[in-house]
Amino acid sequence: MLEQRKRMMRRKRSVAERGMVSAAVVRRLPRYHRFLGDLLRKNELRISSARLSLLMGVTASQIRQDLNCFGGFGQQGYGYNVRYLYEQIGELLGVSEGYRAVIVGAGNLGRALVSSHMFERRGVVRTAMFDTDENVIGRTFGGIPVYNVAGLEEYVRAAHIDIGVLTTPKDAAEGEARRLAAAGIKGIWNFSNQELTLPDYPDIIIENMHMGDSLMMLLYAIKEKEDGR
Amino acid sequence: MLEQRKRMMRRKRSVAERGMVSAAVVRRLPRYHRFLGDLLRKNELRISSARLSLLMGVTASQIRQDLNCFGGFGQQGYGYNVRYLYEQIGELLGVSEGYRAVIVGAGNLGRALVSSHMFERRGVVRTAMFDTDENVIGRTFGGIPVYNVAGLEEYVRAAHIDIGVLTTPKDAAEGEARRLAAAGIKGIWNFSNQELTLPDYPDIIIENMHMGDSLMMLLYAIKEKEDGR
Repeated sequence: MLEQRKRMMRRKRSVAERGMVSAAVVRRLPRYHRFLGDLLRKNELRISSARLSLLMGVTASQIRQDLNCFGGFGQQGYGYNVRYLYEQIGELLGVSEGYRAVIVGAGNLGRALVSSHMFERRGVVRTAMFDTDENVIGRTFGGIPVYNVAGLEEYVRAAHIDIGVLTTPKDAAEGEARRLAAAGIKGIWNFSNQELTLPDYPDIIIENMHMGDSLMMLLYAIKEKEDGR
Repeated sequence: MLEQRKRMMRRKRSVAERGMVSAAVVRRLPRYHRFLGDLLRKNELRISSARLSLLMGVTASQIRQDLNCFGGFGQQGYGYNVRYLYEQIGELLGVSEGYRAVIVGAGNLGRALVSSHMFERRGVVRTAMFDTDENVIGRTFGGIPVYNVAGLEEYVRAAHIDIGVLTTPKDAAEGEARRLAAAGIKGIWNFSNQELTLPDYPDIIIENMHMGDSLMMLLYAIKEKEDGR
């Protein structure tokens, strides 16, 4: 058992160190992480590639191809070690880094985000929200306080914040993004519908979340179905 | 001018009828639609591929390749007709179909969605929200009333609803999805974090919106940058 654990540890290091996971696999990993997390919460600690295949709607061969480089599988027919795979994938994706986030914009979307399990499940600590609205400043949502956005830069610097989640109206997005950038943020998760680019800050990662694009793909698929294409 | 309009109309029909747009282009179209909409709102009615390229951060040659099948471009150097392209792309994507939507779940996320411009910009009419919470039923958000979810199926049938937007907790998602499906919905936009499959209803389009996956891609990119890979 100890031998097996050691072997796993060696595999673990080698995957992370040698960058053995392709970009295409990385893009598929969040979905595996999600399904493995669901299994864990149901106390299912072993799963065969065949059953995972059925659950996720991808071929067992694809699953083996995507996951076997992580190790965590026992003897033939015994299946994957769910917790081990979950942790491995999480580590590769940065879940265990303990990144710290603030949410800029405490409207309905900001409140929905702050109350969701999304952050803690991915190891991200939310520390504060920021808004301009005097009626909201000083309140807490999901245990997270709302501060005046005037103090944003100072807070981000002092509290070593890594991630800014932007849920401001479109017009305010670029200004707040620049303030986060100037204060040394590492990444911005942008819900503002204003596609952000910060050419002065090439090291800052921006993930634009365009919900409207997803809606359009839905409309297109419905229309295509109706047209009988 | 009339001649030009007629020529455009002919082009328009041919793109739609012959299915000349590849799946890869279709996936890029919502982003074009978004940028063209922004230009329209700024009263910019003509744009060169060079300027659109700068704005969107894709090559001018890619833009010509993606958009030239829509027509809507004038003489060399004159640029694209913004409104025409916007309408063309919108029509292809189903924006002008006037689809009708209900939102199931009137929590923070449901309220954020109902108040956003996302739907009306894409031609989708929101008619009602549904919830189980007695404190919320009877209220309105963004002018949209909240009804008791007990009446969901009857309402969907009577009001000819095309789209159900699911913002319920994870545990409730599949049940509400099945009720929407039984009532004849065409598509489900699923925010519940419960990946939906409805094998009994193969004709229903499901667009799963996994915000957490987007967060993970951000975490991964930050970690990769920090590791200096």
